[in-house]
Amino acid sequence: MPVTAKEWAQIKLLACDVDGVLTDGGVLYGPDGELAKRFYIRDGMGLRLLEAAGVRVAVITSELSPVVGARVKRLMLSDYRPGMKRKGEALRQSMAQFSAAPNETAYIGDDVNDAEALVVAGIAIAPADASDFAKSVSRYITQKPGGNGAVREVADLILAAKGIDAAKLWAELHGGKPEV
Amino acid sequence: MPVTAKEWAQIKLLACDVDGVLTDGGVLYGPDGELAKRFYIRDGMGLRLLEAAGVRVAVITSELSPVVGARVKRLMLSDYRPGMKRKGEALRQSMAQFSAAPNETAYIGDDVNDAEALVVAGIAIAPADASDFAKSVSRYITQKPGGNGAVREVADLILAAKGIDAAKLWAELHGGKPEV
Amino acid sequence: MPVTAKEWAQIKLLACDVDGVLTDGGVLYGPDGELAKRFYIRDGMGLRLLEAAGVRVAVITSELSPVVGARVKRLMLSDYRPGMKRKGEALRQSMAQFSAAPNETAYIGDDVNDAEALVVAGIAIAPADASDFAKSVSRYITQKPGGNGAVREVADLILAAKGIDAAKLWAELHGGKPEV
Amino acid sequence: MPVTAKEWAQIKLLACDVDGVLTDGGVLYGPDGELAKRFYIRDGMGLRLLEAAGVRVAVITSELSPVVGARVKRLMLSDYRPGMKRKGEALRQSMAQFSAAPNETAYIGDDVNDAEALVVAGIAIAPADASDFAKSVSRYITQKPGGNGAVREVADLILAAKGIDAAKLWAELHGGKPEV
Repeated sequence: MPVTAKEWAQIKLLACDVDGVLTDGGVLYGPDGELAKRFYIRDGMGLRLLEAAGVRVAVITSELSPVVGARVKRLMLSDYRPGMKRKGEALRQSMAQFSAAPNETAYIGDDVNDAEALVVAGIAIAPADASDFAKSVSRYITQKPGGNGAVREVADLILAAKGIDAAKLWAELHGGKPEV
Repeated sequence: MPVTAKEWAQIKLLACDVDGVLTDGGVLYGPDGELAKRFYIRDGMGLRLLEAAGVRVAVITSELSPVVGARVKRLMLSDYRPGMKRKGEALRQSMAQFSAAPNETAYIGDDVNDAEALVVAGIAIAPADASDFAKSVSRYITQKPGGNGAVREVADLILAAKGIDAAKLWAELHGGKPEV
Repeated sequence: MPVTAKEWAQIKLLACDVDGVLTDGGVLYGPDGELAKRFYIRDGMGLRLLEAAGVRVAVITSELSPVVGARVKRLMLSDYRPGMKRKGEALRQSMAQFSAAPNETAYIGDDVNDAEALVVAGIAIAPADASDFAKSVSRYITQKPGGNGAVREVADLILAAKGIDAAKLWAELHGGKPEV
Repeated sequence: MPVTAKEWAQIKLLACDVDGVLTDGGVLYGPDGELAKRFYIRDGMGLRLLEAAGVRVAVITSELSPVVGARVKRLMLSDYRPGMKRKGEALRQSMAQFSAAPNETAYIGDDVNDAEALVVAGIAIAPADASDFAKSVSRYITQKPGGNGAVREVADLILAAKGIDAAKLWAELHGGKPEV
């Protein structure tokens, strides 16, 4: 069934997989292994706005990647759980930490290793270019692909459902009054 | 209302946001944080041609990124204002420095943190793949996306409106007479 | 003739070219030569799942690239044959090592230097964006392009034909019982 | 007028611009400036095959980029002319060096700084995603974009017109007899 605005408005915790969600699934390897990943600035802005609006953001990944750690740190997100092969358990831990019930929790993932987390969350989300599997077990499929706006689309839906104007929020955060 | 050729011809200052405008919104992170951004050579050529034609180019960004600094330096642009959370104020400073009135100023941005600068400029521009917000407050939406020709498209419009032949200008800059 | 599920189910060895297959054909050069290649996480997951299901994965390339070596090592694949100008011979060596007959062997490649290997394998595969040549000598052309799901598509076909549920397999590998 | 097979068959020298032709126009900047460019392996294969078939390949660029130098060296191309602001003159020098008349010379470029070289060459070529200017002065516009097959498409046209089978040529170069 489609996700209603009322349901989006209830979200207190948004948990995100990394590869294929915060990235397009690509990873740059150099001679010594993982060199870099590409993140999307507008996704990062969406996560910052969510945190400013009181929604906790968690990043859950089965990898142990310093690259991801650097990005999470830069965005000052509330929760980071690397090296979690069982993402369903990681998500439950994050929900307990922030006292978020299933209907207050959304999870976005793209592949078979997201299966359990997608079941645990009240709102399961897959990016437009996720695997057929992830789409088949999700309630909301974004119009934008992973690493190119999927996460921002979710952030905008949550903010709009809560009646928050993103441009005004950003201006207020930086000491100005919005001019638009 | 659409931007007329007469309006493009009046532009003395083109100010550009960075992420999503001079780039496609992607940023490469390594283990130590920001590693690189991808710029587009034809955009850079457009900005160089504008400067050669007497149009000032300013780069305004809320980030403090050595990567952007390196690109601005390479292109020898007139103005660079990093770390500006309030881009509207940064744009006003740039306009004052170059004695550019609002109708002589164009600004291109893609997200909610560009809201104030888009209002300050006489011609507000959003790339084809900008956020819906940026498009909704812009007078001109480019056909090309950010980091892949959006800025060059604007440069070409300004040069054409001023009656400048880009190929001839480039040849003259490098001591030759154009053969085409 | 189309590849039947029965044929996919017989595969014991999947051999992959690198550039244009495990990547989109791009290579990042720095001042000192090859700096990095972009791999696709979901392709890597597919290869890991194949190995977990008892299908051997070989990577065959005419290049001597430490970057590729790093990726193969990370994925813990059964066989890596770099610097092989004659990929047909390399594939025969791999088949001998794992006692895989032609009808138990699939090879995926994208260019003229894959010609011989594509003939040796029982199932010759080309990515959606392979050269016309590679497509013309292949029995299966993936719907996904190289470096963006072509290899995963093949892995999914083999696993499905063998009656293996990828989400269950992944969960079992990591000590859990699947919840989906 | 369209380029005939007879004209392609006469080509002795193919000269290529770099940005937007051998790349998609993107450049990766790091804190110290240019960090990397992305090249396309199948384009490189095309240039190697041309050289093996006796067609000289020249790379002409207005930049002084060690990154490009590294790629040219790797491909062992006959001629490299960096830092040439006047590409028409650079092309004439290359033609003189290899005794190539205009009708034996093809040049592929994408922007206004390629104007003179596009006039000098007998066959002027622009990639599918070149600037409108470059397309307007070119006789052949490739179907593939720059950095993703434009140069290979040209190489294949030249080889085919000369009656050379690329797969056979590659096999012969590496000591085998072709099996396809």
